[in-house]
Amino acid sequence: MTEVEAKKPQESLQDRLAQVVELLHKQKLVEDLAHRQEGHHRDLVEHLVHRQNLAELQRKLDELHSADVAHILEALPLEDRLTIWQLVKAERDGDILLEVSDAVRETLLADMEDHEILAAAMEMDADELADLASELPRDIVHELMETLDAQQRERVRSALSYEEEQVGALMDFEMVTIREDVSLEVVLRYLRRLKELPGHTDKLFVVDHEGVLKGVLPVKRLLVNDPEKIVREVMATDPVSFHPDEDAYDAAQAFERYDLISAPVVDKNDKLIGRLTIDEMVDLIREESESEVLNMAGLREEEDIFASVWKSLRNRWAWLAINLITAFMASRVIGLFEGSIEKLVALAALMPIVAGIGGNSGNQTITMIVRAMALDQVSTGNTSRLLRKELAVSLINGLVWGGVIGLVAWVLYDSYSLGIVMTAAMTLNLLLAALMGVLIPMTLARMGRDPALGASVMITAVTDSGGFFIFLGLASVFLI
Amino acid sequence: MTEVEAKKPQESLQDRLAQVVELLHKQKLVEDLAHRQEGHHRDLVEHLVHRQNLAELQRKLDELHSADVAHILEALPLEDRLTIWQLVKAERDGDILLEVSDAVRETLLADMEDHEILAAAMEMDADELADLASELPRDIVHELMETLDAQQRERVRSALSYEEEQVGALMDFEMVTIREDVSLEVVLRYLRRLKELPGHTDKLFVVDHEGVLKGVLPVKRLLVNDPEKIVREVMATDPVSFHPDEDAYDAAQAFERYDLISAPVVDKNDKLIGRLTIDEMVDLIREESESEVLNMAGLREEEDIFASVWKSLRNRWAWLAINLITAFMASRVIGLFEGSIEKLVALAALMPIVAGIGGNSGNQTITMIVRAMALDQVSTGNTSRLLRKELAVSLINGLVWGGVIGLVAWVLYDSYSLGIVMTAAMTLNLLLAALMGVLIPMTLARMGRDPALGASVMITAVTDSGGFFIFLGLASVFLI
Repeated sequence: MTEVEAKKPQESLQDRLAQVVELLHKQKLVEDLAHRQEGHHRDLVEHLVHRQNLAELQRKLDELHSADVAHILEALPLEDRLTIWQLVKAERDGDILLEVSDAVRETLLADMEDHEILAAAMEMDADELADLASELPRDIVHELMETLDAQQRERVRSALSYEEEQVGALMDFEMVTIREDVSLEVVLRYLRRLKELPGHTDKLFVVDHEGVLKGVLPVKRLLVNDPEKIVREVMATDPVSFHPDEDAYDAAQAFERYDLISAPVVDKNDKLIGRLTIDEMVDLIREESESEVLNMAGLREEEDIFASVWKSLRNRWAWLAINLITAFMASRVIGLFEGSIEKLVALAALMPIVAGIGGNSGNQTITMIVRAMALDQVSTGNTSRLLRKELAVSLINGLVWGGVIGLVAWVLYDSYSLGIVMTAAMTLNLLLAALMGVLIPMTLARMGRDPALGASVMITAVTDSGGFFIFLGLASVFLI
Repeated sequence: MTEVEAKKPQESLQDRLAQVVELLHKQKLVEDLAHRQEGHHRDLVEHLVHRQNLAELQRKLDELHSADVAHILEALPLEDRLTIWQLVKAERDGDILLEVSDAVRETLLADMEDHEILAAAMEMDADELADLASELPRDIVHELMETLDAQQRERVRSALSYEEEQVGALMDFEMVTIREDVSLEVVLRYLRRLKELPGHTDKLFVVDHEGVLKGVLPVKRLLVNDPEKIVREVMATDPVSFHPDEDAYDAAQAFERYDLISAPVVDKNDKLIGRLTIDEMVDLIREESESEVLNMAGLREEEDIFASVWKSLRNRWAWLAINLITAFMASRVIGLFEGSIEKLVALAALMPIVAGIGGNSGNQTITMIVRAMALDQVSTGNTSRLLRKELAVSLINGLVWGGVIGLVAWVLYDSYSLGIVMTAAMTLNLLLAALMGVLIPMTLARMGRDPALGASVMITAVTDSGGFFIFLGLASVFLI
């Protein structure tokens, strides 16, 4: 997509959002007026006012960077969102569609005519098309492919042939390639002939006549070295490069670790086939951490916060249902001990403490582990070591906090034996929490699943049922 | 710090980590051997083998990029970590200290002699020094300041004068500045004289003789335009720029939104005082999302997963204690209804379901809201709208899932009235969860606190106590 030099935003995003909303409402007011009133004259006035407001809104939007318009669209309820979307200049549709979140894009595409979508898509690069293809109507994608030249079509196909989380799906094809046997002077003249360089060009790719990557020429070196020098003398040989089937998130971490801005993507024969750029990687890092947060809370996907109630329900039901089952199991555990509870009703009041603290402590452990795994700091290898540490932490927490609550129970119900059972149960449940807090994510990882997936729901299930069983069990044995 | 062109890692990080660990253990074995054995001859042999292993390890480490060494240090338990740290070439100490997480850096600094720390710090730039200053021993910082020239000292001071989360604390000072009235040819010659350009130089800063920012000259434009042209004709006027007292995270979002690589930092008179680069921003985005995850789980800070048990306890106690209090409150709520429970013990078994589902649903809501707030998509303005939606979702969830569990309760305890109470309680508690799930983060934000802070602990507290009260309350009124 053609690159726009970002202009300094005059006001904060929040301010701009507020202004747009205000204009929107002014305009709605006028519309309502129009509906309630008759008479050609009034109509005319209303018409003018209305037009004027729209024009003002239009002007505001035209001033904004596409990314800002995208942000505003995301922050508006559906109805207002579409009003704004209608006002956006057609030639910016493509840019903006690429900026908004999937959830919001869906609502925008649903509001567009096929020919509008087609027009927007026409302006996109091969890799951008590939990103969107899955969300576009089948027939439109076909029509699009027709319009593309062979090379473009080939690129779209190849990009589509990779999984979403593979490097191949994120690479673009806007690379400047040079030969290693020319002088920097020649390179500089070549660049001038190009008129424009692709975004994030911090290095030129040095390839031989078969397109095999020989090295990269950082623009920095191009600028500081004597133009008489030959590319070969100045270029960096064996730079960080990636394969299209590598995991994109690993690539993102490499970008972060080595402070890369762009990097070559090569096939198994070292042939240059594309490049990765930091902007894609930043988005990926952001998405990864988001999905981690969402997964732990048991949400299926990022949710457009103004999504319909129905959409939200679909997004949340899966885990709620699972949670319902686990909660029911916990309830049955208690059912086993109804006899004891009837005899000593204090148990009913104290058991949620044991379960609750266990859940909280377990969530702390599992959060730590999931984070560390996401950062590649723990492999399933050092499980046992982590386990020892977490168990030690839990033991101390159990004895200390369990002791405190045990004393309270003793005083409250005037039974030291009840206090001791309480302390014992707390300690055991915290140990269980630590055990599962380490094992759940490790096991998910071993199974090749996302270690964060519903972690919080699962750990809570264990600490609830476990906590009730341990506490009521001990009580039945020693108190009843 | 001098920039190293990242070399293509030969193996995956995990592999390299494994190799280093293996070498470490080989060497330990030999040491143990040495302790158990006597005799000059054996000693000599051991000595040689030992030396050889260390040498091999040393070689491995020297091949690695500082960022990779940092990663390996983070992934090793303290003892092994320090062994490796000793082997790292002194001149790389600085680079590596800057790469590791705060928690790990602490352990490394603790292991260094003052003169070693001083030597490492001497190689750092002003902004890097400022980052570390807070963690270095007081007297060393003083000694350092002495060694700096006036300008450097001034820069460190200014960087130190800003809060950690302000732009001023993250900006560096390695800017290439040019005048607007010279030709691109002159600029190119000037750059060649510099011999080296600072990292992430994607644009040159155009300033007047007072150092006021007039615009930026993207390197891309410098390369594609006719050298005869004057900077003024080619430069981009009013680029995205930042003030040192702006919120760094807002800056990071701007970098993400406008795909920036570097951006100028100016004072209130538009005087250029520093620049921000994408690498700092990426780290910030990463940290932000981490602290969000940790905060929601009620962890104080990022924890070195191999931290001592004692450190971990300190990190986790605060929220555990709060959770203990809230759990105790919930327990007292149940205490109020012990009479009812004695009469109908089924209540004890069913009440955790009401509380549990409420907690799960509340956590989903609060996670959504916190995310949306972090992305600036919701202001405290559209609270009411979000509230309506979340309440609608909860109402449906309550009636559906509450209905299901109500039926189960009916069948299980053969009392339809108990089933109805169950359904009603579930619905009410889910509505409570939605209400608080929206209000808690919004209120924290209004109070200028992090909306994620302990969100999960708080929402669970409400849904527990609330759930027990609603369910047992309804039961006491209608069933007892």
